[in-house]
Amino acid sequence: MLRPTHNGDRYELTSPTAMPQAAGFLWNQKMMIQVTCRGYATAQFMQPEPAKYAHAPNLEAKTFMQPEQNYYAHHPGRFFYIKDEETGALFSAPYEPVRAPVDSYSFSVGKSDLAWTIEHLGVRVELSLSLPVADVVELWSLRVTNISGRARKLSVYPYFPIGYMSWMNQSGEYRSDLGGVVASSVTPYQKVADYFKQKDFKDKTYFLCEQAPDAWEVRQSAFEGEGGLHYPSAIAATQLGDSDARYETPTAAVQYRLPLNDGETRDYRFLFGPAFDDAEILALRAKYLSAAAFQATRDEYAAYVASGQGCLRIATPDADLDNFVNNWLPRQVFYHGDVNRLSTDPQTRNYLQDNMGMSFIKPSVMRKAFLHALSQQEASGAMPDGILLTEGAELKYINQVPHTDHCVWLPVALKVYLDETADYDILHEDVVGKDSGVALTVSERVSSAMDWLLQARDKRGLSYIAQGDWCDPMNMVGYKGRGVSGWLTVATAYALNLWAEICETTGASSSLAESARHFRAGARTVNRAANEHLWDGDWFARGITDDNVTFGIRKDQEGRIWLNPQAWAILGGAANAGQRASMVAQVHEQLVTPYGVQMFAPPFSAMRDDVGRVTQKHPGSAENGAVYNHAAIFYIYSLYTANEGDRAYDLLRRMLPGPSEEDYLQRGQLPVFIPNYYRGAYHEYPRTAGRSSQLFNTGTVSWVYLCFVEGLCGLKGNSDGLTIKPQLPSHWDAIKVVRQFRHATFNVSIQRADVSEIQVWQDGNRLTENVIKGIVAGGAYALEVLIPR
Amino acid sequence: MLRPTHNGDRYELTSPTAMPQAAGFLWNQKMMIQVTCRGYATAQFMQPEPAKYAHAPNLEAKTFMQPEQNYYAHHPGRFFYIKDEETGALFSAPYEPVRAPVDSYSFSVGKSDLAWTIEHLGVRVELSLSLPVADVVELWSLRVTNISGRARKLSVYPYFPIGYMSWMNQSGEYRSDLGGVVASSVTPYQKVADYFKQKDFKDKTYFLCEQAPDAWEVRQSAFEGEGGLHYPSAIAATQLGDSDARYETPTAAVQYRLPLNDGETRDYRFLFGPAFDDAEILALRAKYLSAAAFQATRDEYAAYVASGQGCLRIATPDADLDNFVNNWLPRQVFYHGDVNRLSTDPQTRNYLQDNMGMSFIKPSVMRKAFLHALSQQEASGAMPDGILLTEGAELKYINQVPHTDHCVWLPVALKVYLDETADYDILHEDVVGKDSGVALTVSERVSSAMDWLLQARDKRGLSYIAQGDWCDPMNMVGYKGRGVSGWLTVATAYALNLWAEICETTGASSSLAESARHFRAGARTVNRAANEHLWDGDWFARGITDDNVTFGIRKDQEGRIWLNPQAWAILGGAANAGQRASMVAQVHEQLVTPYGVQMFAPPFSAMRDDVGRVTQKHPGSAENGAVYNHAAIFYIYSLYTANEGDRAYDLLRRMLPGPSEEDYLQRGQLPVFIPNYYRGAYHEYPRTAGRSSQLFNTGTVSWVYLCFVEGLCGLKGNSDGLTIKPQLPSHWDAIKVVRQFRHATFNVSIQRADVSEIQVWQDGNRLTENVIKGIVAGGAYALEVLIPR
Repeated sequence: MLRPTHNGDRYELTSPTAMPQAAGFLWNQKMMIQVTCRGYATAQFMQPEPAKYAHAPNLEAKTFMQPEQNYYAHHPGRFFYIKDEETGALFSAPYEPVRAPVDSYSFSVGKSDLAWTIEHLGVRVELSLSLPVADVVELWSLRVTNISGRARKLSVYPYFPIGYMSWMNQSGEYRSDLGGVVASSVTPYQKVADYFKQKDFKDKTYFLCEQAPDAWEVRQSAFEGEGGLHYPSAIAATQLGDSDARYETPTAAVQYRLPLNDGETRDYRFLFGPAFDDAEILALRAKYLSAAAFQATRDEYAAYVASGQGCLRIATPDADLDNFVNNWLPRQVFYHGDVNRLSTDPQTRNYLQDNMGMSFIKPSVMRKAFLHALSQQEASGAMPDGILLTEGAELKYINQVPHTDHCVWLPVALKVYLDETADYDILHEDVVGKDSGVALTVSERVSSAMDWLLQARDKRGLSYIAQGDWCDPMNMVGYKGRGVSGWLTVATAYALNLWAEICETTGASSSLAESARHFRAGARTVNRAANEHLWDGDWFARGITDDNVTFGIRKDQEGRIWLNPQAWAILGGAANAGQRASMVAQVHEQLVTPYGVQMFAPPFSAMRDDVGRVTQKHPGSAENGAVYNHAAIFYIYSLYTANEGDRAYDLLRRMLPGPSEEDYLQRGQLPVFIPNYYRGAYHEYPRTAGRSSQLFNTGTVSWVYLCFVEGLCGLKGNSDGLTIKPQLPSHWDAIKVVRQFRHATFNVSIQRADVSEIQVWQDGNRLTENVIKGIVAGGAYALEVLIPR
Repeated sequence: MLRPTHNGDRYELTSPTAMPQAAGFLWNQKMMIQVTCRGYATAQFMQPEPAKYAHAPNLEAKTFMQPEQNYYAHHPGRFFYIKDEETGALFSAPYEPVRAPVDSYSFSVGKSDLAWTIEHLGVRVELSLSLPVADVVELWSLRVTNISGRARKLSVYPYFPIGYMSWMNQSGEYRSDLGGVVASSVTPYQKVADYFKQKDFKDKTYFLCEQAPDAWEVRQSAFEGEGGLHYPSAIAATQLGDSDARYETPTAAVQYRLPLNDGETRDYRFLFGPAFDDAEILALRAKYLSAAAFQATRDEYAAYVASGQGCLRIATPDADLDNFVNNWLPRQVFYHGDVNRLSTDPQTRNYLQDNMGMSFIKPSVMRKAFLHALSQQEASGAMPDGILLTEGAELKYINQVPHTDHCVWLPVALKVYLDETADYDILHEDVVGKDSGVALTVSERVSSAMDWLLQARDKRGLSYIAQGDWCDPMNMVGYKGRGVSGWLTVATAYALNLWAEICETTGASSSLAESARHFRAGARTVNRAANEHLWDGDWFARGITDDNVTFGIRKDQEGRIWLNPQAWAILGGAANAGQRASMVAQVHEQLVTPYGVQMFAPPFSAMRDDVGRVTQKHPGSAENGAVYNHAAIFYIYSLYTANEGDRAYDLLRRMLPGPSEEDYLQRGQLPVFIPNYYRGAYHEYPRTAGRSSQLFNTGTVSWVYLCFVEGLCGLKGNSDGLTIKPQLPSHWDAIKVVRQFRHATFNVSIQRADVSEIQVWQDGNRLTENVIKGIVAGGAYALEVLIPR
């Protein structure tokens, strides 16, 4: 059975070849690791920037995670060779590098651990990986059971490649005093100043064994020999050669020779990770390397992950969807909000949205992050391209490229937080500017950001794009300083309207009421400009270049229609009902595919050098015609605001692999996270369309959660309480929902009935307004909701 | 036979496993390629910075060449699978990735081509690689011969992995219009400014076939399947699957199905390289892809390499040495001088020494380079850390770390040029400063550089080290601005004396005579300071740190004695005869190993943070206790100047692998080049001591050539003519030398005789002085040289 299965808690895959890149990921507060069903692994930890302790066998470029491309035999991984000493027959668990077609195979992804069970040659191998909450340590357990019905002689060889650590210095040896392999390196540098930045780095990699092995091999070349990784020469020999590595690529391979009676089982435990020195390695060993410590660590870590459970549990006709929404989606939201993708300078829009998701999990995290982001606002009101999280952090890579959209995300994220918490007090909090030292209230700072957006427009009233605006990296539209963004123009109106709405709602001071009027008027002006210059008859254009070329319009052969301007014109009010209808029709005709809605179409086939980087992407690669989920979710959200619940659900469901086996195989990913994109260009390159990027870092997930909570279930907060307005897909008759909201529990049963409008019943009484007010913390509310057939 | 053999023109290796990293290299004016005996390859070309057209399967860090570490199965290479269609038996030529133990194997490295002959399964496979002079194209020929005595059905699969080209865009397809596989990418960038730097890059990789193949596979994952590279699934099938790659790692694999009668032969030709567009690919195909074009290109390229032959041919009792000196050494010198290691900003000392070597090959190249380097001299007289060779080039990496030694190399390199050419006119050439626009003569500029050295000293008269001085990267000795270098102090005296000698020799003007006196006096002052502060009883110290700690002295447990201060104290006159004797004795006791003379000993075992980077290197790695040939050759040169011909020859011979088989295996390198270092720490880590770095970029080779010409053969120029003073090792009785000098040919026979001093005989007459004066261009001179027994 190739289709993955789940029991509610775990996803299982029973073939290592059907979806070769299918992976699970674990993270804690210091590290993350993505491990594929075949045993390849990519692990990073913070010191303070992302670093590695297992490396590729050549010098690997330091770059963002790129799990979409295929792995290869020498990629870092965690492997366990099993050899029959009597016949020489060999296989490896979980699958690589031997790639033996095993008798049975299961890759089982839990919320707080990854596990495999493999049976072959009459041996059962059970593997499991877990992490502690806040140390950079992999806890691996290995159980070997003889299921052959006869006594056996086996050798078991855990093989953890360490790779090319550094051109300055690398070595490795078996350390009997520490009980394992320790590889050492010096992170390379050429300038003295870097020495002081790096001298406390964890430049050692340890592989510790609870039981002393019978032999080991620490040199990659000695392990592999001429046999190759599919049958290493050191394994072909009776015993590993007890090598060391001296400025040679180190590896950690150890051998346990075990006679095993029928039915007999052996358990092994190992630790793998980076350390500064021997003392740290010894301390980690003492803390983690025992059966009892493994169990305690697992329990603690499971409690940590459970602390990130969300505010929603659903029971719908779609069990796969329920499992995802109840278990995996909040886990992914929590990951983003708790550790900010393990970066030191998250892009401002990512930081705001990742923390926005915490509104549904731990609102205090969002509150703190919002204030922290505002403390880095510039004197002009502009928000910087990234938010620095640690002392000494710097804006790097993409954060050195000027983008003009960051202010938009302030009211967008704030509104979600306020709806969930009604914490309007935050508006009056003082925030001291990091550089200026000036204290301004949150509302003053957000107003200042909105005014910045209003002034960052050209004479026509359209918003400048500079070198980029969010998820369409069109860096050449406006790099000369004149080009404008259609999306940012309508998004500016959305942000202004949201902020005006917040100001109106609080109504606490006359200045807020005045702000509300000011920004409402601003939004109207902006939307008028959008309609005057960007409406192309059936949809809004994507922008106008430095050289005054309008693009994303009917007469374009490529990049003709873009999703973001349409979605945000709906949200921000630029589009009237008639325009909305024609935009939605065009989006569905031109952009919707079986794997979701494309960011634009048709994809570019060549560089268009007034539009820029996106046009250099190959059709089917990341941005070029892809199903970019972060763009898609705003369109879905706009459909919910437009009461298009059926269309919205249909696209929301396409964010997840399945339910058909073909769909799983095409996407190649387990439904334990939503990737940042699925390959697009469905019409041009159907072979690869739908394939997952395998990347679990994405601003998408907070919004997916919001769409389930506020859109599909229709259980949205406002300043008074909880409003109720479900939008079930028309083929569903009923769902049940448990919603945590402002410290109270709502048990909601939603079902179709012969009603003409939504009816909400509480304790046998129909509510006159579909709002629950005066919510009592700790209370439990049972609601019956009837919706029209 | 594991020991490589040669026939004068080629080196041959008959086992792919004995010296797995043994490699040959080819270069032309635009590219270089190093190919191992097993088929792994590293190729770089200039656009204008070094770039690749075949990549690792993960994103590879852009860094300097690092061929010392082991290769791995997916490393870029050029492979040819051969399958017996009737039995399914498979092997690959030259060796990887199948690693089948073949019946016979030969890797044959020529001066202008690399070739293999492999026999297995009754098939002979002959491979050859050559380059054109100035295009970035690999010319591969493949000949398959049935030697089995019966008719066969074979499939032949050239497999040229292209690897992970770019995260922005990569694809590949078989182009029947171009006749081969073309993979495309966009070099990644994030800032608009980089787009304009990169938009003309050759971002395509082509693999062109003279004969259309029967099938192809362009997607790496489709080629490999579950079979792995040792038996790819696509090869296990009857026919390759005609795949393409769409944002997937591309590869170039094609299939030829060939029924082959006994004795029948098939020839194939292929081109591999980077290109900008289809038009360029078509043009390359038209120019190179035919039997006639291959032959013409080979002839042209051989002529190009031959144009770099040196000024010396020797016939000694050591045939291996003759072959190296007559063929391979000048080739390596020519490579350095003709293309400056294919960089755009060579380090100043490298640029000067690499071009200095051209004094023996094409002196006009050295002349031009010397003037070019001087044009980048700073107003202070200091030389910059690197010399920019192309418009838009920048000082990068190590060239951003301040080193204080660059001025030293001006007279050092100039003296060699003047000795070889007597072109004293160069001293009066005007050189316009690149930044200043000021014209100064060469002699004014060199004097200014010497004065800069004189002022860059502390109150004690010792030379500041800043963050480094040449080949001991001790970046922390003087980074605070106070630390001094023992080597640079005695090297400054050497430079001053050399320049004074040049000034004295020309004697043309009173100002030059005055300069001579000034710099002679300066050298004496510097040497006095060295003796006062750095002489440690038996040798000179390496330096004194910012915090006034003298190091490289008797009481140090690690880094006790350093080679460079001793060698240059001999050259520069700091050491008197008694000091010289004690230093030489100590060097031979503490630093000499079977693989050459170590740069220092004992190696450091841990960081010493007042000395810096070198101490962070593991014992046995590059600088830490290694046999750093560039340092060693100056010691050897100093021995020749001190008439220590026996010791000098002994160490010179150790720069080459062999003659014993054990020595070849330990070094793991063919004697077709001198590497920048052999692993050291002979006493601490004998297992790895002697291993070659495999890196053919090194300032060593010009000086090795000089040592053979001027030291061993003793045929050195001066302002009048050619001086004669051979220093044969005492176990040699006679050698014959052909020396080209100032457009004349000298046939010199040197032999031991019962003489008390060197006697030179010409046409039956003994010369009174051992100098040939009045040399006539085009002349031929026959000399008999008798040397004492």
